[in-house]
Amino acid sequence: MKNLIIASTSTLHGSGYLDYIMPELEHHFKDCSTILFIPYARPGGITHDEYTGKVAEAFSKIRKNVKGIHEFENPVEAVKNAEGIFTGGGNTFLLVSQLYKFGVMEPLAEVVKNGTPYLGSSAGSNITGLTMQTTNDMPIIYPPSFKTLGMIPFNLNPHYLDADLQSKHMGETRETRIKEFHVFNSVPVLGLREGSWLDVKGDKITLKGALAARLFRQGMDAVELETGSDLGFVK
Amino acid sequence: MKNLIIASTSTLHGSGYLDYIMPELEHHFKDCSTILFIPYARPGGITHDEYTGKVAEAFSKIRKNVKGIHEFENPVEAVKNAEGIFTGGGNTFLLVSQLYKFGVMEPLAEVVKNGTPYLGSSAGSNITGLTMQTTNDMPIIYPPSFKTLGMIPFNLNPHYLDADLQSKHMGETRETRIKEFHVFNSVPVLGLREGSWLDVKGDKITLKGALAARLFRQGMDAVELETGSDLGFVK
Repeated sequence: MKNLIIASTSTLHGSGYLDYIMPELEHHFKDCSTILFIPYARPGGITHDEYTGKVAEAFSKIRKNVKGIHEFENPVEAVKNAEGIFTGGGNTFLLVSQLYKFGVMEPLAEVVKNGTPYLGSSAGSNITGLTMQTTNDMPIIYPPSFKTLGMIPFNLNPHYLDADLQSKHMGETRETRIKEFHVFNSVPVLGLREGSWLDVKGDKITLKGALAARLFRQGMDAVELETGSDLGFVK
Repeated sequence: MKNLIIASTSTLHGSGYLDYIMPELEHHFKDCSTILFIPYARPGGITHDEYTGKVAEAFSKIRKNVKGIHEFENPVEAVKNAEGIFTGGGNTFLLVSQLYKFGVMEPLAEVVKNGTPYLGSSAGSNITGLTMQTTNDMPIIYPPSFKTLGMIPFNLNPHYLDADLQSKHMGETRETRIKEFHVFNSVPVLGLREGSWLDVKGDKITLKGALAARLFRQGMDAVELETGSDLGFVK
């Protein structure tokens, strides 16, 4: 049975890395002693070791060991043998490129589908959708495909940001960008605000955290979904 | 001799489409009676006809005819025969996909290199760089390549936006995103604020408009360039 936590962000303003969601994670990873960390998205270009160190420090608070996938000779075997998996944020184009390069995309989908507890934040959440096409990231590298894990029957827009109605900037708002996606694609998109996450247990998908989320569907007006909502209708 | 105007935006807050730059365009297109418009980037998913109509209305103020590339049976011939060319803004992934699909990327580079006056705004400016990898747009469609026209020896980030130091949002700032690009790429990036444009005459590239621009180079601190700067050193 699928078992995922899909978080908009790793960090809330003014609090530490993963702090806001740690009580939830303690339960989520209760049967794991070691978590496999996928640092491929490398925020700010830090090394895999530096990124893994930061994650290990956070998880030490709930007495979990963390090992980076780059520490294994065979990353596919690492995924297959993992007790639990966390994919961190950074750049989604880079993350997806690396997952394909190391042949990890398909085995990752397989083990998560079969119940290995998974945590994603930001880019690591983006890849749980059908495609990475509603990422906010810059295309710093050309991935072989935009197709991602498909653990949920829609796409995500993490770090969802409401339009600033006072702004004089003429660049597109997040909502406009997602509407442009729907000119060419029928996949629903969930705008997940910072502090919200999805809890996936089998086919049941529940919105959690303090905030509402914004759902965009092709040819329909966007709607706000309250926390606690069952997202079974979104497909 | 190359002859381009590369604008950050088509529109400034509170003013009409292309208004702020129209005096410059009157001079730029002085020898053209008809301008070929490339509407492929389709902002907000409007039709090619609607987009071309909007552009025709703006250019009527300086007594120029406008014809959309989609009105021609053979878009490559349309490009080759054009007196002047304008590529409008919208989504860069879509624009680049369409330019490759219709076989227009290479002939467009050829005629602009040989002196056909060119105007780009936003996505239409992005494509004048070496690659589209520093666009702000959402990857709503998968292009066959990120390579673009290469009319200038660097990349652009149109609608460049300074970080809001009061923000509590944890998504990456524009500067952070460009720095991530430089972890993997050595191409310089010019952040062009709304209201600025580049004037390209042969190999001479000059920053114009009211504002300074921000130059990012791999392994170096970002620097501000004043309007009027000769960008010959950026490569």
